[in-house]
Amino acid sequence: MRWLVTGGAGFIGSHVVDRLVERGDDVVVLDDLSSGRKEFLAHHLDAGRITLQVVDLTDFEATLPHFAGIDRVIHLAANPDIRLGTRVTDTDLRHGTIATYNVLESMRQHEVKGIAFASSSVVYGEGAPLPTPETHGPCIPISLYGASKAAGEGLIGAYVGTFGFRAWIFRFANIIGGRGTHGVIFDFIHKLVATPERLEVLGDGRQEKSYMLVEDCADAMLHVMEQTDAPLTLMNLGTQDTCSVRRIGEIVIEVMGLQAHMDYTGGDRGWAGDIPKARLAIERLLDTGFTLTCQSEEAVRHTANLLLKEIVG
Amino acid sequence: MRWLVTGGAGFIGSHVVDRLVERGDDVVVLDDLSSGRKEFLAHHLDAGRITLQVVDLTDFEATLPHFAGIDRVIHLAANPDIRLGTRVTDTDLRHGTIATYNVLESMRQHEVKGIAFASSSVVYGEGAPLPTPETHGPCIPISLYGASKAAGEGLIGAYVGTFGFRAWIFRFANIIGGRGTHGVIFDFIHKLVATPERLEVLGDGRQEKSYMLVEDCADAMLHVMEQTDAPLTLMNLGTQDTCSVRRIGEIVIEVMGLQAHMDYTGGDRGWAGDIPKARLAIERLLDTGFTLTCQSEEAVRHTANLLLKEIVG
Repeated sequence: MRWLVTGGAGFIGSHVVDRLVERGDDVVVLDDLSSGRKEFLAHHLDAGRITLQVVDLTDFEATLPHFAGIDRVIHLAANPDIRLGTRVTDTDLRHGTIATYNVLESMRQHEVKGIAFASSSVVYGEGAPLPTPETHGPCIPISLYGASKAAGEGLIGAYVGTFGFRAWIFRFANIIGGRGTHGVIFDFIHKLVATPERLEVLGDGRQEKSYMLVEDCADAMLHVMEQTDAPLTLMNLGTQDTCSVRRIGEIVIEVMGLQAHMDYTGGDRGWAGDIPKARLAIERLLDTGFTLTCQSEEAVRHTANLLLKEIVG
Repeated sequence: MRWLVTGGAGFIGSHVVDRLVERGDDVVVLDDLSSGRKEFLAHHLDAGRITLQVVDLTDFEATLPHFAGIDRVIHLAANPDIRLGTRVTDTDLRHGTIATYNVLESMRQHEVKGIAFASSSVVYGEGAPLPTPETHGPCIPISLYGASKAAGEGLIGAYVGTFGFRAWIFRFANIIGGRGTHGVIFDFIHKLVATPERLEVLGDGRQEKSYMLVEDCADAMLHVMEQTDAPLTLMNLGTQDTCSVRRIGEIVIEVMGLQAHMDYTGGDRGWAGDIPKARLAIERLLDTGFTLTCQSEEAVRHTANLLLKEIVG
């Protein structure tokens, strides 16, 4: 099996590539290295096990040729910074929606028919029941990142319905783990390195979300792609519990061996377009026979330890 | 009140402009005249009642300045030909998704905060319960047109959630009436003018959808915009019944005074990405106190008469 992984040098992507290489499959990575890092793939590149193509997916002509001879695509490339949309409004349109169109159209022209897509819990928008099942509607995201994920889902549906593609859409909870380059744990460690006695927390700290370990996320995707054969599979990926931002702060402070005081900027959310509370129903995932290695708090603690080593050394 | 109507020279748009002019409001129309026609607005243009700007909404720099001084936007511009996506895959991305982003971003930069958007029943995709309520999920469209409407909804949600916009998203059933430039009745009349003894019908003719008169559609939008004041209102617009494609063929043949034989191309749908059966739940609309002037079959007959005069003279 010859895979193409977009964003394969990124946080989640590099873990997916690890798994594919372990299976002995061929892997082509497309990444613009804007947030992905070549070093995340260094072990495979040195061993000649994968091919890395530095490509800007917003450039269709540059993207197209790499899809020749590919069996299946895992499309993870995206702007990873949800907050950016509050300041720069076209990033998610270009690197989310348009890039996804370019991937799908490249597949169509090269007759590659199978794609897994990293969507997100943020497509559910605000006010969804918790835990949120895949059947919830209407899905009206409140961030430009969420809008680009909803747009990607629609494009995939269109290529399945119109051109006979087969697709797996995964709506991710917060995915955390080693090689993280963004997110609350990453931010907290950086803040505490700068000011070890004080941790500024965006919002009131009561935001509460599910956190899934990146290895579980990668394993779940590949597991589900083997277990299901409908033209289109839509599935939440997450854990069965949540962890509050306040609790994440406590864990990070403890892991770093500090006695920092937490200051809250106030309000029910970290930024305009943030969704304060999120938990996904994962019965569909569990029904495929998949088992999580850990729930949210353990994933947070494990990640804090890993990122602390990566950031501080 | 100063309105900006995108696609205001088009089929639905020109009827909306009629209503706004009747109310005595100021109207700026942006239209690229690709399917809209200046003659649909001739009466208002001659009377100096509206301003028409011929603008390509995919060009942000050309679009932006027209939003200065606008109070409210009705965004109807789109590729009107759903089938086109089976041959040309970037039309709906450019003239749907990207144009909608350009409209929203132009509004943000000029501090215009209210928008009504023409979405579509096709966002529900296939297999939705009939009649389909606004709360149905997941919404996975199967056409590129549907994908662009889902993307537009997501972008609007993002601008509401992130930048404090107020929005009305209307999911349209099939809208029909005078000045139609596309659609099954328009196609049937053209086919019967060419070969009066035979009518080719795409699919098996058993496709069954709701048809709403364009005047009802325009009135419903303006009515709902006055009746609701949530940050975001999502509402189906349609009728309470359906009409089959076979029945539409019979009505058009009868209205034209012909004895044509109907030939079916076969299959359950007209083209890949077509949704064979669609009926929207319209309780939300009726709960606002709105009354339809007619149901589907009467709308079809009325439209067949009007379009016959427009096409044949």
